[in-house]
Amino acid sequence: MRLGVCFYPEQCSEDRWQIEAKMMRELGLRIVRIGDFSWSKIEPSQGSYQWQWTDSLIEKLSGEGLQIVLSTPVSFPPTWLLEILMIPRSTGKNGNNAKPPGKNDFCSNHPLFKEFTLTLISEMSKRYGRNEAIIGWQINHEPYTQKQDEHVCQYCQQSFHTWLQLKYGSLDNINKAWGMNIWSQPFTSWDQINLTSHNFQFATPSYQIDLERFQSDSAIRFLNFQTDIIRSQSDNQFVTHNAKFEHFDNDLFKMGSHFDLAAWSSYPTLLAEKMTPVLYSNNDDIPEFVYDIGDPYITGFFHSWTRGIKNAPFWVMEQQCGQVSEGLTNTGIRAGALRLWTWYAVSCGAETILFSRWQPPRYSHQQLSAGILRHDGSPDLGYQEISNMLPEIPVLMTLDEDIISSKVAILTQYDDIWSLARQPHSTNYSYLNLLFNYFRVLSSTGISVDITSFDGNLSDYCLILVPGLYLSDENLVAKLEAYVAQGGSVLFGTRSGFKNQSNNLIEEPLPGLLKNLVGANVHNWQALPDQVRFKIRSDISGLGSDVGVWIEAIYPEDDEGTNTLARYIGGPLAGKAAMTVHPFGAGNVYYLGFYPSTAQLRAIIEYLLQNEGCGTILDLPEGVVVNQRGNHRVAFNFTRTEKAFVLDDKLITLPPRDFRYFLRDWN
Amino acid sequence: MRLGVCFYPEQCSEDRWQIEAKMMRELGLRIVRIGDFSWSKIEPSQGSYQWQWTDSLIEKLSGEGLQIVLSTPVSFPPTWLLEILMIPRSTGKNGNNAKPPGKNDFCSNHPLFKEFTLTLISEMSKRYGRNEAIIGWQINHEPYTQKQDEHVCQYCQQSFHTWLQLKYGSLDNINKAWGMNIWSQPFTSWDQINLTSHNFQFATPSYQIDLERFQSDSAIRFLNFQTDIIRSQSDNQFVTHNAKFEHFDNDLFKMGSHFDLAAWSSYPTLLAEKMTPVLYSNNDDIPEFVYDIGDPYITGFFHSWTRGIKNAPFWVMEQQCGQVSEGLTNTGIRAGALRLWTWYAVSCGAETILFSRWQPPRYSHQQLSAGILRHDGSPDLGYQEISNMLPEIPVLMTLDEDIISSKVAILTQYDDIWSLARQPHSTNYSYLNLLFNYFRVLSSTGISVDITSFDGNLSDYCLILVPGLYLSDENLVAKLEAYVAQGGSVLFGTRSGFKNQSNNLIEEPLPGLLKNLVGANVHNWQALPDQVRFKIRSDISGLGSDVGVWIEAIYPEDDEGTNTLARYIGGPLAGKAAMTVHPFGAGNVYYLGFYPSTAQLRAIIEYLLQNEGCGTILDLPEGVVVNQRGNHRVAFNFTRTEKAFVLDDKLITLPPRDFRYFLRDWN
Amino acid sequence: MRLGVCFYPEQCSEDRWQIEAKMMRELGLRIVRIGDFSWSKIEPSQGSYQWQWTDSLIEKLSGEGLQIVLSTPVSFPPTWLLEILMIPRSTGKNGNNAKPPGKNDFCSNHPLFKEFTLTLISEMSKRYGRNEAIIGWQINHEPYTQKQDEHVCQYCQQSFHTWLQLKYGSLDNINKAWGMNIWSQPFTSWDQINLTSHNFQFATPSYQIDLERFQSDSAIRFLNFQTDIIRSQSDNQFVTHNAKFEHFDNDLFKMGSHFDLAAWSSYPTLLAEKMTPVLYSNNDDIPEFVYDIGDPYITGFFHSWTRGIKNAPFWVMEQQCGQVSEGLTNTGIRAGALRLWTWYAVSCGAETILFSRWQPPRYSHQQLSAGILRHDGSPDLGYQEISNMLPEIPVLMTLDEDIISSKVAILTQYDDIWSLARQPHSTNYSYLNLLFNYFRVLSSTGISVDITSFDGNLSDYCLILVPGLYLSDENLVAKLEAYVAQGGSVLFGTRSGFKNQSNNLIEEPLPGLLKNLVGANVHNWQALPDQVRFKIRSDISGLGSDVGVWIEAIYPEDDEGTNTLARYIGGPLAGKAAMTVHPFGAGNVYYLGFYPSTAQLRAIIEYLLQNEGCGTILDLPEGVVVNQRGNHRVAFNFTRTEKAFVLDDKLITLPPRDFRYFLRDWN
Repeated sequence: MRLGVCFYPEQCSEDRWQIEAKMMRELGLRIVRIGDFSWSKIEPSQGSYQWQWTDSLIEKLSGEGLQIVLSTPVSFPPTWLLEILMIPRSTGKNGNNAKPPGKNDFCSNHPLFKEFTLTLISEMSKRYGRNEAIIGWQINHEPYTQKQDEHVCQYCQQSFHTWLQLKYGSLDNINKAWGMNIWSQPFTSWDQINLTSHNFQFATPSYQIDLERFQSDSAIRFLNFQTDIIRSQSDNQFVTHNAKFEHFDNDLFKMGSHFDLAAWSSYPTLLAEKMTPVLYSNNDDIPEFVYDIGDPYITGFFHSWTRGIKNAPFWVMEQQCGQVSEGLTNTGIRAGALRLWTWYAVSCGAETILFSRWQPPRYSHQQLSAGILRHDGSPDLGYQEISNMLPEIPVLMTLDEDIISSKVAILTQYDDIWSLARQPHSTNYSYLNLLFNYFRVLSSTGISVDITSFDGNLSDYCLILVPGLYLSDENLVAKLEAYVAQGGSVLFGTRSGFKNQSNNLIEEPLPGLLKNLVGANVHNWQALPDQVRFKIRSDISGLGSDVGVWIEAIYPEDDEGTNTLARYIGGPLAGKAAMTVHPFGAGNVYYLGFYPSTAQLRAIIEYLLQNEGCGTILDLPEGVVVNQRGNHRVAFNFTRTEKAFVLDDKLITLPPRDFRYFLRDWN
Repeated sequence: MRLGVCFYPEQCSEDRWQIEAKMMRELGLRIVRIGDFSWSKIEPSQGSYQWQWTDSLIEKLSGEGLQIVLSTPVSFPPTWLLEILMIPRSTGKNGNNAKPPGKNDFCSNHPLFKEFTLTLISEMSKRYGRNEAIIGWQINHEPYTQKQDEHVCQYCQQSFHTWLQLKYGSLDNINKAWGMNIWSQPFTSWDQINLTSHNFQFATPSYQIDLERFQSDSAIRFLNFQTDIIRSQSDNQFVTHNAKFEHFDNDLFKMGSHFDLAAWSSYPTLLAEKMTPVLYSNNDDIPEFVYDIGDPYITGFFHSWTRGIKNAPFWVMEQQCGQVSEGLTNTGIRAGALRLWTWYAVSCGAETILFSRWQPPRYSHQQLSAGILRHDGSPDLGYQEISNMLPEIPVLMTLDEDIISSKVAILTQYDDIWSLARQPHSTNYSYLNLLFNYFRVLSSTGISVDITSFDGNLSDYCLILVPGLYLSDENLVAKLEAYVAQGGSVLFGTRSGFKNQSNNLIEEPLPGLLKNLVGANVHNWQALPDQVRFKIRSDISGLGSDVGVWIEAIYPEDDEGTNTLARYIGGPLAGKAAMTVHPFGAGNVYYLGFYPSTAQLRAIIEYLLQNEGCGTILDLPEGVVVNQRGNHRVAFNFTRTEKAFVLDDKLITLPPRDFRYFLRDWN
Repeated sequence: MRLGVCFYPEQCSEDRWQIEAKMMRELGLRIVRIGDFSWSKIEPSQGSYQWQWTDSLIEKLSGEGLQIVLSTPVSFPPTWLLEILMIPRSTGKNGNNAKPPGKNDFCSNHPLFKEFTLTLISEMSKRYGRNEAIIGWQINHEPYTQKQDEHVCQYCQQSFHTWLQLKYGSLDNINKAWGMNIWSQPFTSWDQINLTSHNFQFATPSYQIDLERFQSDSAIRFLNFQTDIIRSQSDNQFVTHNAKFEHFDNDLFKMGSHFDLAAWSSYPTLLAEKMTPVLYSNNDDIPEFVYDIGDPYITGFFHSWTRGIKNAPFWVMEQQCGQVSEGLTNTGIRAGALRLWTWYAVSCGAETILFSRWQPPRYSHQQLSAGILRHDGSPDLGYQEISNMLPEIPVLMTLDEDIISSKVAILTQYDDIWSLARQPHSTNYSYLNLLFNYFRVLSSTGISVDITSFDGNLSDYCLILVPGLYLSDENLVAKLEAYVAQGGSVLFGTRSGFKNQSNNLIEEPLPGLLKNLVGANVHNWQALPDQVRFKIRSDISGLGSDVGVWIEAIYPEDDEGTNTLARYIGGPLAGKAAMTVHPFGAGNVYYLGFYPSTAQLRAIIEYLLQNEGCGTILDLPEGVVVNQRGNHRVAFNFTRTEKAFVLDDKLITLPPRDFRYFLRDWN
């Protein structure tokens, strides 16, 4: 486990570099990331590469024993280049600049821009690809923005046509797959597929999901393009990125497959502010947590998601170390937060943590954010905290030796995120809320859980939870059938099996391709408005209560041995099954026909864990998390009050905002 | 009374048509509407008309005894045509595509589009105008969209200039009528009247209402243009449309005058969701009703409005038969809803009801809506309900023999809707809320009421209610004077007589041209902010309480015999009259000087009905409606609880969401 | 003290002018403003000046003894001119017309428009610059709109480049001052500073504040340009404007420096509606006041601000006299309001009041607003009120003889308003709320207070309150040091000294240049989210309670004699000083390290007034204001209930919405 820092040499006079590098080393930092905003300093005018300053900087940093991660600076092309490209950095879908563009909002489909990038990255990797001070590369700075500003331009349009031609072969196939005859508007020429137009046909879910896929693919292709150049000219250097979770525009699983490791930017107080309205529903109680430390479930959710990108230890490429400036309130952080966040990240599977940032800029819109140093160069609060952590590093490194191996997984796919975000049918139905609630409930049980895609090896899991498998196809279903047949168990949530890969409703009775697994049909489903709830009855302890938002009537096939676990006793589906279990091969398949509350989800998951023998549940107070990594456990209290709970028959007491670790006591 | 269905052959493979037709017949359906989205199937490329499939479809449907309504498919021009027209389907007023366009958002003022439409409709009516299987035509699919996307283009601009030249003759007359000198900006050339510009002069109410009128006229002209082509080549076929009430952009009274009958699309749960914020004010209690059946007053309001278009029995061209997909929550519907809605429509004056739709599409943004069949072709909930209704059809047909004849009318005009929507003076003042409240109160009394325009024959009415006659002229006033002189009675609400036809304030003391009728002046008026309410006193039972939103001081002319019925006893108008009555000829004219609450409106309307001898009021619980058609009465309970009330000295008990009909017991 | 009226001859037929002028005189009005909307009537087509009607109008008005203020009518250029200029009146920053333009939304940087204006104003002043009936000129009608519609055009762009060249000399200096290297995007050509683009570099606070300054300067330059033409051709005529306080886009202090007197438009009920969300925070209790009279603190705040523009008596160029039409509810006004407003304005330093307006137009979007006459020409409520005031005019004139001399000042600067509005760091931090709260608290103490800039003579003040001196430089600090050294005292609020004139954070420890004055450092600061509050302790009576929103830790320099007046006893800054006092020369410097509540501010200000001996505080009920002008005091009750309070040991009782004046009893 190593600590490091993000350093922006552009914001600091050159004669300070040596001094700053020494200070970093003395603080115990071992890794430094540079380069994110250096393009114009490297190439002040076209082709005039200035390597002297980078050479000097790298020498000074490595001279102090610091290992360097070099960022490709393409997120901020120089102004002279933007002028050459002659494009506004962003053109909204409506042909106008609806929102001010942010970072990365130029077009990765622009051929000239790709050419300039190619030359720059070639030069950089030729020069530093075998420099031993450089241990790895970060591609772009937060590279996930193709859709952020609803960017569309002629190059995107051409690329989209190419993308569609590769996928469908002909307009006729597109018309069929998208159902363009339904509203009498089949395409008769490629030009009619015009991203700057909003003709009626573009409201079709098939078009929408293909556009989402194309835009995600555009971003991924641009990252892979840079990665390939670097790999061709480097030795012993890893390549990664720094993912951002404020939006879900890019398929991080697909993106991660080409990288050596996964990394993300963790700003817990900012994420708590921004993601609470996205991840919690109006019906959820928001758990008690300290405002200046952030929501443990949200932070943990994204740590686990990042781990699931490659199912391996990951980096926190940017770790908040004081107030930020992009939020609405930008509160200060609590003394002790850095230590808590560091331990929490490691217990969630992180192997390296870089604090963001060494010193805040006096200029630009981020001037009021915090760093390890203050504007005047004196140590800010984070400095002392990192210093205090140094004695703990050996312990953290022990923890680091193991990986997290989970017997339970939550499986998701971006197709479902995108499809249900665009067409939820009811505004009360949020796929991301469901997904998060599954994690939140598991996180409060002390059971390790992976959040990952359907692509990995499933065989080690005891239990797989699928909050909803909206879009499916035969390959995916076959893989799940094989998994269950060999003894694994799966829970499918509402709307599973509803759609095909074209984002259209299936022609067969629901749940379509999942019929064999589920051993039941779903004949009726209804969205319910706010406040309307109907009773269910179940033998599962804690499950029987009101259900709302979404209900489905399940018709179990009796001769398949499908059993009813819960039943509606009120409302339009009264008497119908609300949850079933179906033995399939050596495993079981559960189908949950309603949108569960957090309490109901807890009851269901406890029942499944117990029934399938996948682990023992801890009884933890809200705001307390116990993570296991290898044989270690770390217990955290994110609240403002002391919390007590039982762990291995011992009463553990945790002071507010504190944690405790336990070595080699468990398995 | 006949039942039918909307069928979209484009969404169904051709070899299913025969089978589907047979299923329709077996279900008891008699009418089928086709064609709405067929343009590209009829004319896949320019001029290449394909009639074989339509011939075959018509033959199969009529072969099963189904009567056909043929829709002109111009709401969805083929993509190849849009490309020829070289117009984005919608260009917002600001020159950009502010909102994604919906249906019908191409321009009906585009000469080339009209030419293509002309050719298509000519070919269609030539082929089918004398086909006996076709009983009538529907023009467009929801033809009311000229303003929906704030569409403006060069053709609209030219048409608007022509429209203005016809109306005003010269720019000078426009400058005078619109008062363009007031802000120093008279027009000196026609080009200055530029719809894509937002110069200050276009904030003038005169411009705004003329633009509203022009846009409504554009839509009407385009429908009439199609109607005339069909009429010239057809025999014994009616022509109609399917009106939509989610907006009030088109003058349905004017539009209806050229059709043979009026028709609308009734989606009760969607209307309840969308129109509740429009029709109820913050001060109104929203009545108890069942979410999955819809608000009886809203549904009834639009049934009655549609009946008032031609003061004759009407069609429900699309009747919801399951969840929809255009709303926010898109809830399921209650078992029994189809039967309740059918009876309710007929009791409100409907003569034919087409369920929408036979089967939902697997593709497009509507793929999650419901039909009579499911996606997999199996019967959905509506199928059984329709089947259950078959034995009742003879009774419904008895009910259908009579028309509804009302002694009370609520008169409205689109000029007032448009003027007060644009310039309410206070955001608390909603003309549509007032209009709806008059209907709602009357609907809860069991008294039949017409909602209609000032254009019809008024002489049969005992009482006319005018929630506000904002824009008036001499002809209109003369007609009302003649009606009252001969013994009719009128109530005018607030702001009556304030404006002339140019949407400008009159020069005379208020209420201007209505002075003779009202027998009083209005010298002061005030908008009141939220929560500010002042006391009034009245001998009318139930009227004396607080008033808010809008108050006017009425100064009755004593020597005209005008009497004060209510008086302010607090606030800035204390001591002044708040409601008056003036004998005029053989009738009475009432003036209501404040914005009434629902309870006050009930008190006033009860008083007027009694005073003028226009009928006996029933004392009905909220959510219960009793409609009379001919000698029949049908009582409905739209709530979730049993309701009891007295009808003709008998105690009637209605179970939740049920109804009862009574034959030939009355009148 | 004189009363007058705004008259729009364009809205009235010419044969009425003589009659109207006579009515004005008979009502006791002495001044009439004309011309605001007369351009097209003066110049119906290019160069065709029509002076006959103006000559005749001036003759008729002056014939009745009325003095005339002539408005330059450039706020509403004729439509023919707009056509010549070939510009849409407003082009939003995004290249589209985001909002419909309002008044003044054409471009004052357009060279052709300036040429037309030059010619018009030259002709006008040549003709009327020595006409004795004209006592003065008003430049434009509400001349503060360069930013209102986010207007940007090519002429603005060119002017901005010129403005920047004058200020910075070179692109290199701009890159340094703005810190453009931080995000790797230094400018390499002037064209890159492109107002229609939203490239990332334009999010920098330095760019933003220079754009604000440039836009304010553009408006000011255009007014000064007109003023200079008039001055060159006139004698004995003053020049002024009519300021508007609904936005803060223009630096009124800088604008006022070129005028002879300051004037504003006072619409109390409209301002109460529009400015309450701006000036009060969510934590403030909104004081009791009568809805139809307006908030006394908001009205008084802007009266005082206008007085502070030139630190001299001012005009109310437009005084509301009935309902307006630009608000949301546009309520009526209370009988007695005109008299109350007139006395209130004079007691706040006004010397002339013009009622707006003589008669409302029957046309245009303002047709529902009120005037002294009604639409039908009969006297409206205001007429009688003005008439009733006539006997009081001699008393008002006595009051008028004196000026207001304050010992306390609140100092502000537009740089701080602009900087903190764009980048508040926390949405809970509102500089305008702070500024207003200082005024509100002082206004409720009976102590006269000036709101003015740092530019004036400070030496007469006993106490200066600076709610926050965010941007500072050496000259400003030196002036404050000199003031305090000579015995004055200053209070600095939070964030003082944080930034330099380029809107960037300073490099030195906080409070930077203010260090010598404050005698302390600020090492940590935090924004706090809603509801989070921490305890402080203080010996200042009433101060010790919870603090929220923003807290700073002050580290007093003990050897400088800095004393701690309040201390945090909870939260992240527990134990640190929250308020300090530092003796500097013959005065004291206070630093307030937290965002005060109204109650805390009252405690602090009472303490300071007492400690520095700057006046005796009255104990006034909320909604009661006592203003002093010369030796007179006027007490006002703006509430709906009777209020009692002690003044000079006498119990004063004021009926609701009334006032009382006291002559020569004080000082």
